[in-house]
Amino acid sequence: MGHYIGLDLGGTNIKGGLLDEAGTTVAQRSIPTESHGGPGHVMDRLNTLARQLADDATLEWDRVDGIGVGTPGPLGDGDVVLSAPNLPGWKNVPLGAGMTERTKRPVAIVNDADAAAFGEFWTGAGAGESIQHMILLTLGTGIGGGVIINGKLFSGAHRAGAELGHVIVEPQGRPCGCGQVGCIERYASASAVANEAKRRLGAGEASSLTSIDEVSCRAVFEAAEAGDAMALSVVEEACDKLGTTCVNLVRIFDPQMIVFGGGMAHAGDALLSRVRATFDRRTWHVREERVTLTLATLFNDAGFIGAAGMARAELGA
Amino acid sequence: MGHYIGLDLGGTNIKGGLLDEAGTTVAQRSIPTESHGGPGHVMDRLNTLARQLADDATLEWDRVDGIGVGTPGPLGDGDVVLSAPNLPGWKNVPLGAGMTERTKRPVAIVNDADAAAFGEFWTGAGAGESIQHMILLTLGTGIGGGVIINGKLFSGAHRAGAELGHVIVEPQGRPCGCGQVGCIERYASASAVANEAKRRLGAGEASSLTSIDEVSCRAVFEAAEAGDAMALSVVEEACDKLGTTCVNLVRIFDPQMIVFGGGMAHAGDALLSRVRATFDRRTWHVREERVTLTLATLFNDAGFIGAAGMARAELGA
Repeated sequence: MGHYIGLDLGGTNIKGGLLDEAGTTVAQRSIPTESHGGPGHVMDRLNTLARQLADDATLEWDRVDGIGVGTPGPLGDGDVVLSAPNLPGWKNVPLGAGMTERTKRPVAIVNDADAAAFGEFWTGAGAGESIQHMILLTLGTGIGGGVIINGKLFSGAHRAGAELGHVIVEPQGRPCGCGQVGCIERYASASAVANEAKRRLGAGEASSLTSIDEVSCRAVFEAAEAGDAMALSVVEEACDKLGTTCVNLVRIFDPQMIVFGGGMAHAGDALLSRVRATFDRRTWHVREERVTLTLATLFNDAGFIGAAGMARAELGA
Repeated sequence: MGHYIGLDLGGTNIKGGLLDEAGTTVAQRSIPTESHGGPGHVMDRLNTLARQLADDATLEWDRVDGIGVGTPGPLGDGDVVLSAPNLPGWKNVPLGAGMTERTKRPVAIVNDADAAAFGEFWTGAGAGESIQHMILLTLGTGIGGGVIINGKLFSGAHRAGAELGHVIVEPQGRPCGCGQVGCIERYASASAVANEAKRRLGAGEASSLTSIDEVSCRAVFEAAEAGDAMALSVVEEACDKLGTTCVNLVRIFDPQMIVFGGGMAHAGDALLSRVRATFDRRTWHVREERVTLTLATLFNDAGFIGAAGMARAELGA
């Protein structure tokens, strides 16, 4: 039976797991990234974690069939990480070659948002043969997107597709750090929800949220549930934009399932029921919709599970 | 060498062509649809046209390797046309079975917008090995969309994807006939451009376009080129919405090429230069864009050529 290691490279920690062919996590652990050490050191850390996982599972190193690494930042030809804002010094880093050299095992490099989508598809919300067309929206600091078509990860002509957080949902709206105006992640990421509540508090709006510094996405959702009008308005705006985006994704991709992950998805039904309501109101009614909107099940583990799954898909026999 | 017949079923005419394996049109003709005769009669017409094309090309009927039919309306399982507003009586019509029975040849059924996209991909604007990821927007009465991924037509989980005319570009905008609000086809189809100019004339705005009844998309573009301020404003709004939509399609699909077809694309550079300007202004600048925005080359022939191409792709050896 095949064994695959998945590594999820983040700015603070690297999460990893060793999975079998069926997608069962045999071993799992997390270590600090120590990103201050630069790209070479971080690749050493990735290698260290992978070998620890094999030890944890008492698996001989040569029996690891592949290692998948989920990485932030855009990828260029030859598995080069072009840039990664949260990793100091990462510019044109040959992650694929660097990891192959260190591990001496077959390596697959994948974008972290794509890895999370593949994880939810393989063993999470979309697990099972019946779901072959799925989209994951990871609602965190930004919004990450991943698209599964016919059971395979979709990445576009230059591995730059599925940047769903930067789909424009409000053409005359808020400026985005990416240079565009009105990207969905300026309205419906966890950070956007917290920032909008802070802005409105700062502008003097009445709210039960009194301490600006402690306003988080979670606090805004909790205040909304408790009846705070300002918080409710922020939450409803975010969910309206997400619902509109879901209509567009259904018109474009005709998926079977759209999954919400990331920190904001911990709000659960308070998020899901509102997004569904907007979706139902905004979508067409010429045909019955056959898409399921639902919550992620793997959350923080989706990245390493999906990275292992991609190693299996790309490198497996 | 293989030979394929492509038929493009429209409300008024059926266009058809017989193509060889390489995509060269060997014979081509068009006949009235006679849609008043109902589905059975229209299928007879499709069969008649196909056999005429084989006669034109002096090809024995048995040597026709496949027949592709591009049809309006959504498709259900078993190549059933669920509905087609421009074809009286078309509700749950088993077009695949009906054409197989009549022609006794292998038949492929495809949505007409998808067929046009495949035609432009195969022998039109996207011809050649280098383009494998392409999108066609057909700017006519509505906006039809078709998406080619890795050289194959993308259709989604239930053949309902790539409905690009019904992507919402203005969430608080104009109501669309489909039941949604703010669909791109309410802003940037040929009909939308003509209708908006008519509305503004009716509201008393000054313009060189004096006779409301004669306002067409072409007339609006011509007036805009001649310096008419109202017409220019209508054209610029349409091109701005199209440019925004292109940004979103690039973020989502990362295509190599976006092609504009349909009646409005006859405006040529007056359309293309404006859409490009909006796209350049609205897209991000984190990475260099590698997409080409361009005009269709096949126009009205794209449908039958693409239908023949789909027959070749699905039925060819």
